[in-house]
This record gives sequence, C-alpha cells and structure tokens, in this order.
Amino acid sequence: MASGSIDAKLRKRAERVIPGGMYGHMAVQRGMPEGYPQFFERASGCRLWDVDGNEYIDFMCSYGPMIAGYGNPRIRAAADAQRERFDIGDGPPPVLVELAEKFTGQITHADWAVFAKNGNDATTICNMIARAHTGKRKILVGESAYHGSQPWANRRARGTPPEEHIHYPTYRFNDVEHVRATARKAGGDLAGIVVSSYKHDVPQRQELVDPAFAREVRKICDAESAVLILDDVRGGLRLSLDASWSELGVQPDLSAWGKAIANGEPLAAVLGSEPYREAASSIFYTGSFWYQGAPFAAAIETLDVLKEVNAPRRMEQLGQQFRDGLYEQAQRHGFGIHQSGPPQMPMIEFENDSKKTQVASFCANALRHGVYLHPWHNMFLSIAHTEADIEQALEGTDKAFGELP
Amino acid sequence: MASGSIDAKLRKRAERVIPGGMYGHMAVQRGMPEGYPQFFERASGCRLWDVDGNEYIDFMCSYGPMIAGYGNPRIRAAADAQRERFDIGDGPPPVLVELAEKFTGQITHADWAVFAKNGNDATTICNMIARAHTGKRKILVGESAYHGSQPWANRRARGTPPEEHIHYPTYRFNDVEHVRATARKAGGDLAGIVVSSYKHDVPQRQELVDPAFAREVRKICDAESAVLILDDVRGGLRLSLDASWSELGVQPDLSAWGKAIANGEPLAAVLGSEPYREAASSIFYTGSFWYQGAPFAAAIETLDVLKEVNAPRRMEQLGQQFRDGLYEQAQRHGFGIHQSGPPQMPMIEFENDSKKTQVASFCANALRHGVYLHPWHNMFLSIAHTEADIEQALEGTDKAFGELP
Repeated sequence: MASGSIDAKLRKRAERVIPGGMYGHMAVQRGMPEGYPQFFERASGCRLWDVDGNEYIDFMCSYGPMIAGYGNPRIRAAADAQRERFDIGDGPPPVLVELAEKFTGQITHADWAVFAKNGNDATTICNMIARAHTGKRKILVGESAYHGSQPWANRRARGTPPEEHIHYPTYRFNDVEHVRATARKAGGDLAGIVVSSYKHDVPQRQELVDPAFAREVRKICDAESAVLILDDVRGGLRLSLDASWSELGVQPDLSAWGKAIANGEPLAAVLGSEPYREAASSIFYTGSFWYQGAPFAAAIETLDVLKEVNAPRRMEQLGQQFRDGLYEQAQRHGFGIHQSGPPQMPMIEFENDSKKTQVASFCANALRHGVYLHPWHNMFLSIAHTEADIEQALEGTDKAFGELP
Repeated sequence: MASGSIDAKLRKRAERVIPGGMYGHMAVQRGMPEGYPQFFERASGCRLWDVDGNEYIDFMCSYGPMIAGYGNPRIRAAADAQRERFDIGDGPPPVLVELAEKFTGQITHADWAVFAKNGNDATTICNMIARAHTGKRKILVGESAYHGSQPWANRRARGTPPEEHIHYPTYRFNDVEHVRATARKAGGDLAGIVVSSYKHDVPQRQELVDPAFAREVRKICDAESAVLILDDVRGGLRLSLDASWSELGVQPDLSAWGKAIANGEPLAAVLGSEPYREAASSIFYTGSFWYQGAPFAAAIETLDVLKEVNAPRRMEQLGQQFRDGLYEQAQRHGFGIHQSGPPQMPMIEFENDSKKTQVASFCANALRHGVYLHPWHNMFLSIAHTEADIEQALEGTDKAFGELP
C-alpha cells in the first residue's frame, strides 16, 4: 500500500492501539509481502475489496471459513432469519438440535455433537473427552501441526512454559514407525492421538495423508485403548462431505470442526461416536456465545448448499484448473514451481527459494493484478469461484510470472 | 415443562444427538428446578419466550451478554450494516481499529486492545502475556473463581490432569494474608495474579471486593514485578463504565472482557497498559473468527448506548428496586432470605437452605408466573428492564413466595 493510502492511515492508527499493529494470522506485517492490504471494506462471492477500493479474486477465503461465497444469499437469509427471531437467550433455540441431527446424520462416525466458537475450543474439548474416557493423560500431536493457539497447542516460545506440553508428545506425520515409537513411549498413559486431515503445517510443503499411516494410527489407538481424534478444522467440508479420513476407510472416534462449517458465521463443533458419549457428558465445557442461534442456522444451510453441488469435487476441479494453469505458466516463463496439497487447498513454492523471496515477489505481483494469493500458507478454493474466475486469476498470475526478474 | 410440550419433544431429540442432552452452563438438567425450559424461540428487550410460547421477564440476560436489550435496534442496525458490507475476509475491516480506539479511550488503564471470541480466550491471552513479559510461570487464581472452562481454568475432575494446574496456585478472595502467603510460595516465579471483579464463585454467596484487598494485591504485584490481571468478563460494563476496580482507585495491568461488550454478538477482548504492549506483540494468539466485523460494530454502539444512560448506575437502581421488593415480600411471607452481590448482578438465597431446595421451589414458582430467575447463579439486570418490568416481576415473585410451603 502506498504511504498515502487509507490502508496506511489505518495501520498508523492501529499501531497505537493494537500491539504490533495487528495480532495473529491476519497480521500482514508477520511475513506478508510488501503491498498486501491489512484492512478490507467489502466482500462478495469470491471477491474482496480492500479499503482503498482495490478488488481481488480471493484464494484465502478468510483462511478457510468462507466456502460458499461471501454473503451467500441462502446462508445469509437463514442466519438473518434466525437472528431476527432469536440469537441468544437463557438457552439455545431448536436449531441447535436440528444442526446436531443433520451434522451427525452426514458424518459417518458421528453419533453426537457439541458446539463451540473456535476450532481450538473443539480440539481442546476432544482432548478433555479422550482423557475423561480413558483416565489417561498423554495426547500425541503432530510435531509441527497446528491445532490452535491455546498454550497446549502453541509452542511458539514466549508466553507458554514448557510444562504446558509435557503431556503432548509429538510424532512425525506419515511416519508409521515414529508414531508407533512415540505411542510406545507414552506406555500405559496414552489417552489419544490427534491427527490433521493431511499435513498442512505452515510454512512447510503440504503432504497428503498416506493411507497406510491412517490405518496404522487407527490400529495403534485400538490396541492401546486410545482415542483417535481427527482435526478437520481446516480441511473439513473441503476434502469430503464426510470426515476427511472416511474416504480412506478410517473412522476417527472424535472429530473437531470449525472454519467453513457455517460459511463464516462463528461456529466450531466436536463430533463423536457412541462410546465417547458418556465421557463427553461427564465433563464441563462452555462459552458465553456457544448457544448462539444464527451460526447454527447458517451451518444447516451451508451443509445443504455444499451437498447439492458435491462441493469437495467441485472445489477440487476448480483447484486443478488453477494448478494446471500455474504449472503451464511457470514452465512457459522458465520457472520451476512445486504445488502441494489437495487442489482445493493449494500451496505454491518456487524451486531454490528456501527464503521464499521469489514466491513472495510472485504473490505481490499477482496481488497488483487482482489475485489474492498467499506465499507460505495453504490457500482455499470455494464453490463461489467459477471457471471464469479461475481464468481471470490466471491472467493475473501470467503477468505476475512475467514481471519476475 | 409438561411431557407433551414442544420443549419436552426437543429434549428427547437432543438426548439422542447431544451428550447428556445439553452441554455447559445452559444445560438445565444440570441442577435447574423442574419446569425450566431448555429451548427458546423469541427474545425482545428484557423478555424471552420459550418454544411453548411462555413469556418471561429475564433476569439472566443470556448469563450476561445481553445488557442493552435483546434485539436492541441501534446495536442490531450497526451490526447488520457492517455484516452487509463486510463481516469476514483476509483481514479485518476498519471498525476493529475504531473499537480499539474507543474502548482504550474509555478504560483508564488501557493503552491497547486485542480481540477474541470467548471470555476464556481473553483470560488465557492475559496469562500468556504475563508470562511473556515476566519470563516467570506462576499465575495465582482465586480458589473457586471461574475464568473459563479451558483445562487451566477448569478443575472439575475428569478430563483435566492435575499437571494442568501446577502453575496456577490458588488464593482465597478478599483474604490479604492468604494471597500474600500464596505469592510468597511462588517465590521468584510469580508471573501474575488473576482477580475477578468481585467474588461471584457459583454457587457460593457473592462477596463484593474489599478495597483493602484490591490495594494489597496491586502492591504485591508491584513488589514482585508480577502482572495484575483483572477478569472483568462477567462484571464488565455492569459494575462500571471503566475497569471495575477503577472505582477503588486500583488499576490492573491487563483486563479480560467478554459477555456484554457487544450486547450478545460474540466478542471478547484483552485490554492492556503500555508496559505490556511489547509482550503482547511478541506472542501468537488467534482464531478463525476473531476479525469478524459485525461484533466490533455492535461493541462500538453498545459502548455508546451504555454511556448515554450511565448504564451501571441505571442497572444498580433497577436491581435495588428488585432487591428491596424481594426483601419486603420475604418478610411479609415469613421467609428469611439473603441477597448478595451488586444489585445489578444479584443473587438470592434462603436461610437454612444449604441444599438450595427452597430457593429452587421459589424460582420454579416465579417461572410459572413469568419471571426467569436462577436459584444458584448470580443474575443480571440490563438497561432494557424498566421500573414497570421490575414491578411486574415483583408481582410474580410475590405469588412465588405465597406458594411456598
């Protein structure tokens, strides 16, 4: 953003009243290329407008929550109608039950549901249930996996004493021997293993889950009477309309959901299978806004909308169109690139670019041509993208390649 | 609710798909008297309607979030207008900055702000900042205080190994000697002390904060270079338009907010003073929905609406009217009752009622007469209540006393 821009002025104001100018994953000063806007003023379909009026085709989808288009009319109408009648009160509206019925009806392993606000609420509740059920303490997590920013899930140095992690030993994703060894070390104290849908450990290269790994983790949990916890917060409903490991024939015991399940209305969920119902009802977890009606209504409509178009396959097609186009352009412009992850959650890297300077330049160029990409985080497609949007985005990326030194 | 009621039918459906039929503080089966509805379908001003069409004057205000009336037209309009333009995207809308400016401008100790979704997000972030700033580990908490349901704050048996609490020693609220001794035991490892606005440790009798205790805790923090963290999630904006200990002349270093700050839109906040800005910007905390625009817009309007009527004093008056009426009625009907806490966050107990059976009967009776009270949790007034509402509620409670055995 130019120094006289509205964005720049807002950043100056933000600098005074927000530590570092912005917090968390949306803080563009945390490693985004020069030129990325911090503040936005309009969103519609797959498009965003920053506060200076620049329009972008969005490949981040709010880092996942948007899956059916910003302001999707059906989902907005459902949420607004519920909000008008009843959003909060001294108990939930019936739509909580309707969503629990619908969601558990759709997800193979699920017999019951519990709702919260953050994906991290859901992963935390899964751990609590696993420990309550087993009476054991150790929860295995992927060594660089992200399950939220609460201290147990957050090893980013300051602010979290190492004691917060003593019961969270780490294993290497897709490494059967390593997860087996880590489980063995936990001995009789293994309460559960948390797995991501696939390896999307920012800023590393993405890696799909090895079906043999998935099956082995399931076996270890069965052998050790430990709980298999699937973190589908990021991948949920983009990879599959079922829990994401279902397509491999592996069912988790508990699954954590968030981000896209209500198309951006704040909602997270834990789904569980029958044996864990008693443990789930024996412990206490709650939040002031966890019974809010509008997000439940939005989620019900979101599940319908996504099912009607077989959203995961639709986003996979669109992502593949984008991926094929980028490979073709890179080759034509003489660049070696690597694209990883499922096409609907793509990530792009340049060869010999360990400091990510080239991919950062590429993204900054694309941004100027109206395409909002991310240089080191997986991106997200939505069903609001069309083939024409992808083509238009590819026109922008073609120029972006052309402008690289 | 009668067995043929809509509420009863919904509970049967919920029993199948939600562990125990409902989770958390809104689960009426967790100790609410017979007859309390679980599900609601309409809310307006200070009134709620359950799914069977029964109307209640609400003294729980959604357990705090509602402070300016369900569906407050000004706040709803502000939230809806923001939602229409921009709710979520790849960065926040400008209204985040506007709220940070407004909120820090109103709260004496605050120089900066960070926003989240759950009150418990805010208390957790305060702990992280305190540890990052001091490089120390121990955070003192009140021995029966509630700062959320995340494991560090949740000692309710199963699901939380005791190791989660080794760095959270407990002190007795209002007990200067005890907090001093506990701080001494933490030795050079004292990162912070978390205090509630006042003692509202459900289901105990409420206790206002002793000003000498507040001053002493401040002194201990200063002497030990520890951080004073005020949990104003429950009391915030009901006790004061400033941080709640401001009226005692005691300023916290960090304060946690949630519940009422956006009149029910999901929002929490950490406010901090200058010395903690660097620590706050050095650590990572985030959530998928923490940048959502509508709740920021709602919070800005809520702060205005509350200031215009000096909301804490207004709610105190209304609460006092209710309290006076209840004392008069109790005496007239021959019951000894005790009312505790600030009038705007009242709690009622019956004498010689350690099992809370009499207060439960009283509340169940009041409910049948259209007054939604709570038998063992503090209640909440709002500025949507009027003197006429309180009078009408007192007509209901008068009958409720009369029907007691």
